[in-house]
Amino acid sequence: MTGAPLGVAVRTIDRADAAIIDTLGAQGVATVHEAQGRRGLLAPYMRPIWPGAAAAGSAVTVLAAPGDNWMIHVAVELCQAGDILVVGTMAPSTDGFFGDLLATSLAARGVRGLVIDGGCRDVGPLRDMGFPVWSKAVHAQGTIKETLGSVNVPVVCAGELINPGDVMVADDDGVCVVRRDEAAKVAEAGARREANEADKRKQFQAGELGLDIYGMREKLDAKGFRYVDTADGLKER
Amino acid sequence: MTGAPLGVAVRTIDRADAAIIDTLGAQGVATVHEAQGRRGLLAPYMRPIWPGAAAAGSAVTVLAAPGDNWMIHVAVELCQAGDILVVGTMAPSTDGFFGDLLATSLAARGVRGLVIDGGCRDVGPLRDMGFPVWSKAVHAQGTIKETLGSVNVPVVCAGELINPGDVMVADDDGVCVVRRDEAAKVAEAGARREANEADKRKQFQAGELGLDIYGMREKLDAKGFRYVDTADGLKER
Amino acid sequence: MTGAPLGVAVRTIDRADAAIIDTLGAQGVATVHEAQGRRGLLAPYMRPIWPGAAAAGSAVTVLAAPGDNWMIHVAVELCQAGDILVVGTMAPSTDGFFGDLLATSLAARGVRGLVIDGGCRDVGPLRDMGFPVWSKAVHAQGTIKETLGSVNVPVVCAGELINPGDVMVADDDGVCVVRRDEAAKVAEAGARREANEADKRKQFQAGELGLDIYGMREKLDAKGFRYVDTADGLKER
Amino acid sequence: MTGAPLGVAVRTIDRADAAIIDTLGAQGVATVHEAQGRRGLLAPYMRPIWPGAAAAGSAVTVLAAPGDNWMIHVAVELCQAGDILVVGTMAPSTDGFFGDLLATSLAARGVRGLVIDGGCRDVGPLRDMGFPVWSKAVHAQGTIKETLGSVNVPVVCAGELINPGDVMVADDDGVCVVRRDEAAKVAEAGARREANEADKRKQFQAGELGLDIYGMREKLDAKGFRYVDTADGLKER
Amino acid sequence: MTGAPLGVAVRTIDRADAAIIDTLGAQGVATVHEAQGRRGLLAPYMRPIWPGAAAAGSAVTVLAAPGDNWMIHVAVELCQAGDILVVGTMAPSTDGFFGDLLATSLAARGVRGLVIDGGCRDVGPLRDMGFPVWSKAVHAQGTIKETLGSVNVPVVCAGELINPGDVMVADDDGVCVVRRDEAAKVAEAGARREANEADKRKQFQAGELGLDIYGMREKLDAKGFRYVDTADGLKER
Amino acid sequence: MTGAPLGVAVRTIDRADAAIIDTLGAQGVATVHEAQGRRGLLAPYMRPIWPGAAAAGSAVTVLAAPGDNWMIHVAVELCQAGDILVVGTMAPSTDGFFGDLLATSLAARGVRGLVIDGGCRDVGPLRDMGFPVWSKAVHAQGTIKETLGSVNVPVVCAGELINPGDVMVADDDGVCVVRRDEAAKVAEAGARREANEADKRKQFQAGELGLDIYGMREKLDAKGFRYVDTADGLKER
Repeated sequence: MTGAPLGVAVRTIDRADAAIIDTLGAQGVATVHEAQGRRGLLAPYMRPIWPGAAAAGSAVTVLAAPGDNWMIHVAVELCQAGDILVVGTMAPSTDGFFGDLLATSLAARGVRGLVIDGGCRDVGPLRDMGFPVWSKAVHAQGTIKETLGSVNVPVVCAGELINPGDVMVADDDGVCVVRRDEAAKVAEAGARREANEADKRKQFQAGELGLDIYGMREKLDAKGFRYVDTADGLKER
Repeated sequence: MTGAPLGVAVRTIDRADAAIIDTLGAQGVATVHEAQGRRGLLAPYMRPIWPGAAAAGSAVTVLAAPGDNWMIHVAVELCQAGDILVVGTMAPSTDGFFGDLLATSLAARGVRGLVIDGGCRDVGPLRDMGFPVWSKAVHAQGTIKETLGSVNVPVVCAGELINPGDVMVADDDGVCVVRRDEAAKVAEAGARREANEADKRKQFQAGELGLDIYGMREKLDAKGFRYVDTADGLKER
Repeated sequence: MTGAPLGVAVRTIDRADAAIIDTLGAQGVATVHEAQGRRGLLAPYMRPIWPGAAAAGSAVTVLAAPGDNWMIHVAVELCQAGDILVVGTMAPSTDGFFGDLLATSLAARGVRGLVIDGGCRDVGPLRDMGFPVWSKAVHAQGTIKETLGSVNVPVVCAGELINPGDVMVADDDGVCVVRRDEAAKVAEAGARREANEADKRKQFQAGELGLDIYGMREKLDAKGFRYVDTADGLKER
Repeated sequence: MTGAPLGVAVRTIDRADAAIIDTLGAQGVATVHEAQGRRGLLAPYMRPIWPGAAAAGSAVTVLAAPGDNWMIHVAVELCQAGDILVVGTMAPSTDGFFGDLLATSLAARGVRGLVIDGGCRDVGPLRDMGFPVWSKAVHAQGTIKETLGSVNVPVVCAGELINPGDVMVADDDGVCVVRRDEAAKVAEAGARREANEADKRKQFQAGELGLDIYGMREKLDAKGFRYVDTADGLKER
Repeated sequence: MTGAPLGVAVRTIDRADAAIIDTLGAQGVATVHEAQGRRGLLAPYMRPIWPGAAAAGSAVTVLAAPGDNWMIHVAVELCQAGDILVVGTMAPSTDGFFGDLLATSLAARGVRGLVIDGGCRDVGPLRDMGFPVWSKAVHAQGTIKETLGSVNVPVVCAGELINPGDVMVADDDGVCVVRRDEAAKVAEAGARREANEADKRKQFQAGELGLDIYGMREKLDAKGFRYVDTADGLKER
Repeated sequence: MTGAPLGVAVRTIDRADAAIIDTLGAQGVATVHEAQGRRGLLAPYMRPIWPGAAAAGSAVTVLAAPGDNWMIHVAVELCQAGDILVVGTMAPSTDGFFGDLLATSLAARGVRGLVIDGGCRDVGPLRDMGFPVWSKAVHAQGTIKETLGSVNVPVVCAGELINPGDVMVADDDGVCVVRRDEAAKVAEAGARREANEADKRKQFQAGELGLDIYGMREKLDAKGFRYVDTADGLKER
């Protein structure tokens, strides 16, 4: 949790520019993570429920009680086309907060995916729908609608703070968040990184070595790294 | 374990009606779990070894010592077409109790799949055969045949009690058990749930909200849930 | 770690015969593991990053500091066509030591895959390239190049000792290592096992039982295993 | 779960003889587990919340929804002096179902401890009270009272079936269950085992070897086990 | 992470009133967690390195790279008597970021303890010093000083957002955070809760039941909960 | 495993000097780990079964099948006063390989402790005996004596290679291995480190800062680290 009040929903949030969001999505998680100084990655236990899933969008955030998906229903109404729903929980839970009916409701509003620090069900139908979900578990366990949480307040999801309107980027590598007001700058840095990597990729394809491309040999030498011809050389130390 | 005696196999068990089993299989894990009052789910660490796997059948149960698959060989003879083999262990083990030869033997008898609270190997060949397995690990570690367990006694598998002849339903969402004598009633409740969900799906596709469909707004209000227009409204509490 | 010195790379290592390596690869992890007396399996948490991945090759080994992929860059230069890079770490780490640029560099040298007791990123591009990786995590977290480790010294990877030049066999079942000087003998034992399994498979397909094929009934009887007709028989013990 | 109905409490259960329960408690988990044929152990993640905790008693069972401790309150009334409360959950949960107030209530009735497949809180006060708890987590997260479960029906707790009135034995080694109608027989077998172990202990203290006491040398020889004088002997194989 | 900039330390932070912090510490984790509406708990994997540890203080926060404790050294200078150091990491790490020398340095400044989402070492000396630490691992693995993080920016630690100056409360039950500007209000609510619990404790000691004290019987009845005299009654449903 | 042959015991192994072993033991795990260049630590899941346990000795190694403690019995005869028994397994297992009878047998020979990559039982009696054990689990599950392993061959235990005769150092921080032929050198480096740390401890007690003692301010400055007076300064970047 983030200290945000419980029992409240914020109707209107600011979002980043749609073109920038799409640019970040095309760059992907690894590039965006690097482009913003290696910040913003969610924990590695967050995995797509089907391979190849990829999405980028504006975070509509949910703080939910464990095993209680009431606030997800509240959040749907506040989602727009291009959003990604992000759910954090007040305590660890692997219950199945989300399934194909909620996905149908979100898809009808143009929502692009779900990131949930909990369980998901209806994996087969969701794959058939092409609705992408990143979750920490797959479990069919039903959830209830009894305890108030909040919508569109800052939440912690899989070890990362997510503010409403932040940009979520998710693919086979996991999930990364970009602060809304940094999105343009990160997209630019990502583009530079992509260009640089395209150059590097050609060099690597041509057989050049990272040791030379990145000039690592001097630093290795300075730190005392040494080469021996065979394992026999190890004993002479 | 369940207190069942060790070193014994029960030859004849009662099974549910074949048509009802197939109905439950078509409904799938999430629907069946809900239809029987949110009971019967195995732990979420039970995952299919290949995506898209789905099966339903009558449980032939095995209680095995850790790292010992002797009792699986004993069980094969007692399986019929339409069965699913269910293996619980006396202590945690991720060894590879099961591979493609045993699957060939089971498939020759018309067995529909395996649910094992342990490890499985030969994942590639099993996928090619189309033989579905739900397991807690993939590991090639060989097992021995030294310690007696039992066949067709009640076993605990992944946190759930399984009786011989219970109906197993398994798909991408995991595994759910239905008591044999409740199968017909659950299948009926599942059918009602499916019909209801089909209606709901249309409403969601048309853009209606769960808040309205389920009449949640009053209860939110009664619990003091409130809306604010923007994040600034959070501070005024 | 293995007590090998830090800060050193061995340029030249002995490798097993290429044809034998390919034979072992075709036999696969489960067969090779059994053929060498149930030795050599890495821990079950080592999973392919995409299904269907399979590779066999000579180990070029890396001992890396947690979150530091410097030594991987050093190792590339020492790899040949037919090798598999094997990375152990000095302390547990799930960071993303490896991505598509390093894979491009390795692929340009004919390296067949990566086995890493840490994290991997760029899973989508690696799948598109067909470059197989077995790792304990997928995580995009960037790594640094600051701390010396070693290349081509014995390393522990996922609970197994790997010597430079050992044969790595990896597929959907996980990863198995074969000592270089045992490779020919293991390949022969594997071929015998394959032939034997082909016979067994036919018998199983024909409906014969493991109880009879393996002659298990006497041993069951000797240990006091008993059959009862129905569950009622359990109470009469 | 065990297929037991939800929403019901059984008022009266049969219990084992009090003297036998105390005998089993004095024997401890390891002895009792062996004495009944290596059956009945709960999963190793069940740990005492303070070292030295030990208890034995009759199981009063609770099936609880995840994060919901309502049924524990229902169960208190049905407990007697000498009982141990056993809680299984319908889905995994680490929430804090139990704390010092409930312990005070149970202690006032002479209940000897708690075994819970979930979380516990107020660890310090419970240690000060001397009230023993075995749980899978310590977490202060509060729970609710909304969803019906059951009391005194068979439950699965940490991978083991527990029937109301079964004998629970718990100490630093974990938790073991003994079927009520087997308690006397197991206590006798445990006493024989204790006597035997006392003899063995003296032999071991006198420097005798298990190899000789248990007559293992022949079997080692028969399986081809061999001794070499030094590591050099390993190469001559 | 929280989107805070990397490579910066904030010298001056606001702290809560010292007397209120001590009050919260005396109330303990479970009471404080409840008193603020069941918010603020860190994940249950955060455990004290020695039993009986308890502390409360103002958070001085550190954002550290995995396996890199440089920023902890930076933070020491910014700590005052009564503070608790709180360390979050940019990626999961169990390395030993902290040991007895750093504890000596912190103790010399009057710091009351450490909460770290990583590993700790020198557990024996820390226990002898009486310096309390809550960590997710004990591991001696040394860390480096190479990568910039930040000090006194908001951090996520074990799934909870911690702002500099927030009040940390930690004991055998884990760790809870209270927002600085809510500390007084929470302490008052905690005092009311303590008074109420003292009353309840007397009632429970006198043998009264939660069912009656909390008036649960009506709600049970309304939900259809029923009692049967014996297990035979379960079948009549 | 390490490629060592199965089914063999080596009678005679070389051991390090007894005084040096005791010196390393007195230095403890963290100091020894640092003194040998941050090598040799076993995985952090290896924990003492009772707090305050500490031991150092020469490794007698066991390679055991999962759930099979036969080779431990073989190893006892080959142990001397001052040894520590080290057990690695061929596949993951949490079964209770070791209890108070085996400890009595080892203690009678002067063995100082056990390090086992598996489960241990009889925790209470072992604590009362003062026999220290480091294990990955506590579980009473009984083990069998059926499958050959080896004694006094190199084994992997908790991610680290252990050779017979290596020096094991274990305390509350975990377990560290020192190569036999490096023991003297490591003990000397450890002594220097202890002297240095004693000096540092005095400086820290006197309130000096690591920033100054280690001269970190320049490097921070060179990397662009900056200080701001208050959180307002963060926005001006």
